[in-house]
Amino acid sequence: MRATFAGYSGLIMETFTPTARTQVRRLPKRGVYDKREVYAILDEGFVCHVGFALDGQPYVIPTGYARLADEILIHGSAASRMLHALGDGVDVCVTVTLIDGLVFSRSAFHHSMNYRSVVMLGRARVLADPAEKMIALRRFTNHILPGRFEEVRPPSDAELKSTTVLALPLEEVSAKIRTGPPVEDEGDIERPVWAGVVPLHTRLGTPEPMDDLVPGVAELERSRFTRF
Amino acid sequence: MRATFAGYSGLIMETFTPTARTQVRRLPKRGVYDKREVYAILDEGFVCHVGFALDGQPYVIPTGYARLADEILIHGSAASRMLHALGDGVDVCVTVTLIDGLVFSRSAFHHSMNYRSVVMLGRARVLADPAEKMIALRRFTNHILPGRFEEVRPPSDAELKSTTVLALPLEEVSAKIRTGPPVEDEGDIERPVWAGVVPLHTRLGTPEPMDDLVPGVAELERSRFTRF
Repeated sequence: MRATFAGYSGLIMETFTPTARTQVRRLPKRGVYDKREVYAILDEGFVCHVGFALDGQPYVIPTGYARLADEILIHGSAASRMLHALGDGVDVCVTVTLIDGLVFSRSAFHHSMNYRSVVMLGRARVLADPAEKMIALRRFTNHILPGRFEEVRPPSDAELKSTTVLALPLEEVSAKIRTGPPVEDEGDIERPVWAGVVPLHTRLGTPEPMDDLVPGVAELERSRFTRF
Repeated sequence: MRATFAGYSGLIMETFTPTARTQVRRLPKRGVYDKREVYAILDEGFVCHVGFALDGQPYVIPTGYARLADEILIHGSAASRMLHALGDGVDVCVTVTLIDGLVFSRSAFHHSMNYRSVVMLGRARVLADPAEKMIALRRFTNHILPGRFEEVRPPSDAELKSTTVLALPLEEVSAKIRTGPPVEDEGDIERPVWAGVVPLHTRLGTPEPMDDLVPGVAELERSRFTRF
């Protein structure tokens, strides 16, 4: 893997180098290592699944995340078992999955889904510096809704202390993408049944405001939710 | 944990007994062990994240699933590394997560998400009997769209052979649920900013039919997609 030197764009790594652990072996044509494509998936998603093993037992826990430069950030209570384990530097796998559509074939076998997923391996570091933590918390909030952090009360010292933030460097990373129509065996084409793709979208429902809002407070504008 | 005897409802287990590994410790009021509630989450979702460790490194892989009675089924190519590892009886964690809404508080700290998630621990068994495999494949297809398996070409012997199906017994299971409005600190109530919940829904987009459908084939009726 080529070294990454921030600020010297000529040497910035533009693709992730597959390792024995991240090389997509099943259906390798679905493997993606281009950094821009990987980051686009990470910036569209907002929930990841964090995998770690304790006493040999794997655990997979869903949690919010945000990408900041070449790291993925997760956070939670300082009392969390998961964050304790990860902060101790155990091996971790963080996976982000976006489901784009249901793929209907004329055979049961070729039914599938269109998706984009990213698998990230490594060891996380705990953010110890309060200023760095504050930047991370701003990123979490604004990853969901740009500008939100600036309009709400910022974290107090006590809140900052009670929050653990972990950063996983994006080094050993691969994405897998399926797009397009179903595969069909030639003998199935004549079968009189619908086949194709039904896209799936995540949509905002009707906002449910608190009943004690300050009178006249504006609703959140739909256009601010850039990903939905 | 009480034994489960199918067909004798008086002894059917109605709740999962929390173990040291599935007891929800952080925010225990969010922990759910009621079987009906857990199964409702599993039956609404259709993508899980499977966690397993190989040589100490955890991996988290997204894949489709379906519940059948008291087991969760996953499947894939017989060539899949993941299914090989799991079929060898390694410890596994399968997690299903549904995101129900974004929770906006008047402080950065109390922003949250509404969600329902299920964590399942155990060891999977490989379905060896072709008849049992066929039942499982029917369940996968019809979990996405009821009745679909009956209208498409069923799996051939070769397709059946090339597919590995694993079943994880639902024994060591817990769910975690967050619902409702944000927590607010009293001092933040007067802040003139919107707060509340914005629900999230997964919706079907416009179907994209194959261009070689048999003329006159009916579209998939929206009402068949019971979960969207």
